[in-house]
Amino acid sequence: MARTKSRRRRPSGGSGELRFIPLGGFGEIGKNMLMFEYGDDILVVDSGLKFPDEEMFGIDFVIPDVSYLVENKERIRGIVLTHGHEDHTGSLPFVLPRLDVPLYGTPLTLGMAMGKLTEFAPSYEPDLREVHAGETIELGVFRVSFVAVCHSIPDGVGLIIETPEGIIVHTGDFKLDPTPIDGRLTDYNAFAEAGKKGVRLMISDSTNAERPGHTPSENIVGKSLEQILRLHKSRRIVLAAFASNIHRTQQVFDAAARFNRKVALLGRSMVANVELARRLGYIQVSEDLLVPASEAERIPANRLVVLTTGSQGEPFSGLVLMSKGEHRHIMLGPKDLVAIFATPIPGNEKLVSRTIDRIFSLGCEVIYDREQHVHASGHASQEELKMMLSMVKPQHFVPFHGERRHQHRHAQLAVEMGVPEANIHILQNGDILRIQGGKSQVRGAVASGVVLVDGLALGEMKGSVLKERRELAEDGVLILSVVIDGEGRLAGDLRLESRGFIHSADAKALYEEIHKGVLKAVGSTGEKAVQDPEQLESRIKGRVREVIRRLTRGTPNVVPMVTILKKSEGPQ
Amino acid sequence: MARTKSRRRRPSGGSGELRFIPLGGFGEIGKNMLMFEYGDDILVVDSGLKFPDEEMFGIDFVIPDVSYLVENKERIRGIVLTHGHEDHTGSLPFVLPRLDVPLYGTPLTLGMAMGKLTEFAPSYEPDLREVHAGETIELGVFRVSFVAVCHSIPDGVGLIIETPEGIIVHTGDFKLDPTPIDGRLTDYNAFAEAGKKGVRLMISDSTNAERPGHTPSENIVGKSLEQILRLHKSRRIVLAAFASNIHRTQQVFDAAARFNRKVALLGRSMVANVELARRLGYIQVSEDLLVPASEAERIPANRLVVLTTGSQGEPFSGLVLMSKGEHRHIMLGPKDLVAIFATPIPGNEKLVSRTIDRIFSLGCEVIYDREQHVHASGHASQEELKMMLSMVKPQHFVPFHGERRHQHRHAQLAVEMGVPEANIHILQNGDILRIQGGKSQVRGAVASGVVLVDGLALGEMKGSVLKERRELAEDGVLILSVVIDGEGRLAGDLRLESRGFIHSADAKALYEEIHKGVLKAVGSTGEKAVQDPEQLESRIKGRVREVIRRLTRGTPNVVPMVTILKKSEGPQ
Repeated sequence: MARTKSRRRRPSGGSGELRFIPLGGFGEIGKNMLMFEYGDDILVVDSGLKFPDEEMFGIDFVIPDVSYLVENKERIRGIVLTHGHEDHTGSLPFVLPRLDVPLYGTPLTLGMAMGKLTEFAPSYEPDLREVHAGETIELGVFRVSFVAVCHSIPDGVGLIIETPEGIIVHTGDFKLDPTPIDGRLTDYNAFAEAGKKGVRLMISDSTNAERPGHTPSENIVGKSLEQILRLHKSRRIVLAAFASNIHRTQQVFDAAARFNRKVALLGRSMVANVELARRLGYIQVSEDLLVPASEAERIPANRLVVLTTGSQGEPFSGLVLMSKGEHRHIMLGPKDLVAIFATPIPGNEKLVSRTIDRIFSLGCEVIYDREQHVHASGHASQEELKMMLSMVKPQHFVPFHGERRHQHRHAQLAVEMGVPEANIHILQNGDILRIQGGKSQVRGAVASGVVLVDGLALGEMKGSVLKERRELAEDGVLILSVVIDGEGRLAGDLRLESRGFIHSADAKALYEEIHKGVLKAVGSTGEKAVQDPEQLESRIKGRVREVIRRLTRGTPNVVPMVTILKKSEGPQ
Repeated sequence: MARTKSRRRRPSGGSGELRFIPLGGFGEIGKNMLMFEYGDDILVVDSGLKFPDEEMFGIDFVIPDVSYLVENKERIRGIVLTHGHEDHTGSLPFVLPRLDVPLYGTPLTLGMAMGKLTEFAPSYEPDLREVHAGETIELGVFRVSFVAVCHSIPDGVGLIIETPEGIIVHTGDFKLDPTPIDGRLTDYNAFAEAGKKGVRLMISDSTNAERPGHTPSENIVGKSLEQILRLHKSRRIVLAAFASNIHRTQQVFDAAARFNRKVALLGRSMVANVELARRLGYIQVSEDLLVPASEAERIPANRLVVLTTGSQGEPFSGLVLMSKGEHRHIMLGPKDLVAIFATPIPGNEKLVSRTIDRIFSLGCEVIYDREQHVHASGHASQEELKMMLSMVKPQHFVPFHGERRHQHRHAQLAVEMGVPEANIHILQNGDILRIQGGKSQVRGAVASGVVLVDGLALGEMKGSVLKERRELAEDGVLILSVVIDGEGRLAGDLRLESRGFIHSADAKALYEEIHKGVLKAVGSTGEKAVQDPEQLESRIKGRVREVIRRLTRGTPNVVPMVTILKKSEGPQ
């Protein structure tokens, strides 16, 4: 390994036990964050985010709970990034300023992380430390080597970590692409060499553990692309792809150049990633190939490729705006062929389908089928996972980066490859895996769980707020304002408002009955209401619910607001 | 064709134009309902429902808008059902009592429809008329022949409809299964015979128009089942499948009997459908094969198959309750093999995944992959669709039962099979396709759209209520109760409640600022508030929103409720 950077070495704290603690990415795909602890030293790997489930109303994203790290931040020797995807870097703007430790990563990875930090934590100045595949650094007792791996983003690395309890191999997100676009193969030799030395613990990518066979090479996408350009010479070609998949972007540039077409880029992240990748030398493109989106409509249809975001049907992305006829620069029509060079991520199926349906309605030809080889996954399938297991030959194994079923399938593969079943651990976030004297066991847990981010300043959101949102969404709300005088009698008119329940125009009879119910509640409570307005509120709630149950089948949230006028108050 | 039933024939109303009007099932998969109109006669085919999208908060299901049919109900000669699935029969309890016309269907289809009617419209007495494949009935000018088709439910039919403007072929939901479980093949001869006579219009199932090749026969599921039973002799086998797929249920019974196992049925619809199918002779099972669910735990693991609902991860279904350890009778554990004999319907992916994850966590072995042949679709793939087109040789073609992309793919297949492009119509619900003198054109539309059903008594729900629910779900609500005396001064304390926004404990500073904002609004409005409380409400809203924007990034719905005390009111 080429170069060695070193950092102040602290005396090992003496417990003599290696602890592996995942804070995210176990039992889920998203918000990856791992932690290794030995004595006084903590090494953190990645700091990702996850997008919310559909029932997390109004939540923008979900990040790991890092309270354990915050409590122990003086012991953290650094955060090491494996690659630039959001599920590995997206929570940095929320986490890094609180920990304030050095951030290690390859150039493209750091460039992408810096983009996020600049956007979401502009006043924080991170301590960035560039590393390259093939290098080794020391972080406390941990000797971390960076190993090239192929993935759906360039410059990805796995980690080989030497510890006092033996070698740990962390594959990172990887595939074994025999023909990567940049020629940078997964470094089989480094993994096999570690395997030869003896690997205490292996942590490996489970995303595609359900898929038999091999994941196809990224270069099949280029072949499909060429075929599309050959078959549709007279049409304008609109391609949607992931903005971070720089290799796919490179293939689009190459194919467009070969077919004598210009390329217009749409979407903020597409433009930003191409700019970053060009600046750092990860993408090659001649200046005159690109045209600004604003000039795209002036280029003849058969001389243009539009490369856009929106392959997941994301609202406000280039493709979705075009599909709705709302894009400032590009109007789709029968002259266009639209190809979606991605498959929907689970959960996005409907967004993608609706986008495709709208594009069909505009008269475009649309290519989106799996059988057309418009996508190649970035994650290893079963045969590759087995190959990696056979190279690393780990003593203990932890399937990572997957939901429960992916972890279990990956564990089955490890059993097939000869890892003893007792040495395979299906961990959950927060679990502490302890390794000492060649033995591993799961015992104890640190705070894990999720932090829900809704906007920025609100910060972390409580689960109960979300529960209230769910109730509001299901049933709506009925609000009653009741003013009571000092003798417990109704003062002023009853006010009634509803949202998401029923329209007042439709509900005259219902509102009259509710009114009667409130009067009964006020009457039966009498002067006691002045001392105990909560009792009156609870009686109103009961009466009103009973009326609603009787006359409708709705079950809105009933919110009675009782105001008590003090004897001295009110008009004279 | 075997037998002829006839119904009072009315003079044709003279327009001399055949009109085909879909009320559901176009641009969507679900709530299928078609309408044919000629002169004075209307023929309705199917009356389905659809399950709500995730953003239809609190909605139980969606049905077609039948206002056109209600206005013209005296002209409707009957509703003809093609098969018993919910997307073809589910809205009958809401539609049939309003139209009160005869209902035609094969025995199993009517049996299933009757189950729904009894449950949701118990006081209505439908006029049921049993028909069989091979029979022909007359409904006004329409001569309707019922044609056997294979599908994922027994007793399905397509329709050949003779009209004054020529023959219409409606395939219904179909596949060309060469080895159906009940031996009842799709009636190729009837379709080919119509093709030979000349078919004016063909309406055909587009569900799988994106899938190349042939849909596998239902009997592959039986083969997988046998393999599972053979490989897992010592385990208890738990199978999840669609309750309406009677043929799959038959295959489970047959395989269990061969391997000397009993079968326990779980789930209300599973039990009900087996009972109905047995009573009508659509399923063969010896009495001693079945054991009640309550006795299942007494049967040795290797002697039992549990057949349950829940293959789509439906909340409260048998499989989901078991996966949560909440089922009354069955506790899953490491002795169990759970196989899900269905693939997720688009939109259900996450529900299914979470169920599988939970079952893995219980220590079970789980089989659910596509490659294991645990499911065979009930709909024809591209080669079958082309075969059907080649038999029927229609002059005009309408792809049915699909979203836009399915309709477009199916239209492309029709073009390949020689249907002139100008004669192919991608319709939307409500469109009127007019056929006269061998020509077809789309002109005009009837009311279509959706009716959202939330509970039963609330009935049809307005879109704006749904919009309010969406806003509440995204942002929560902040409610203010403000009492003003006859001079426009604040009387009583300001009351403030929030739901789904922020917790009062976290928001002391915010609430104080809001209080100040309300005081300013009250002060600036002064005595005018007594005449014009709406102006005060709007000022309060403005002030409070400004405070919230300043201190948080939330945007809750602000609901100010101003009560004005009249001069005579209030305490003395």
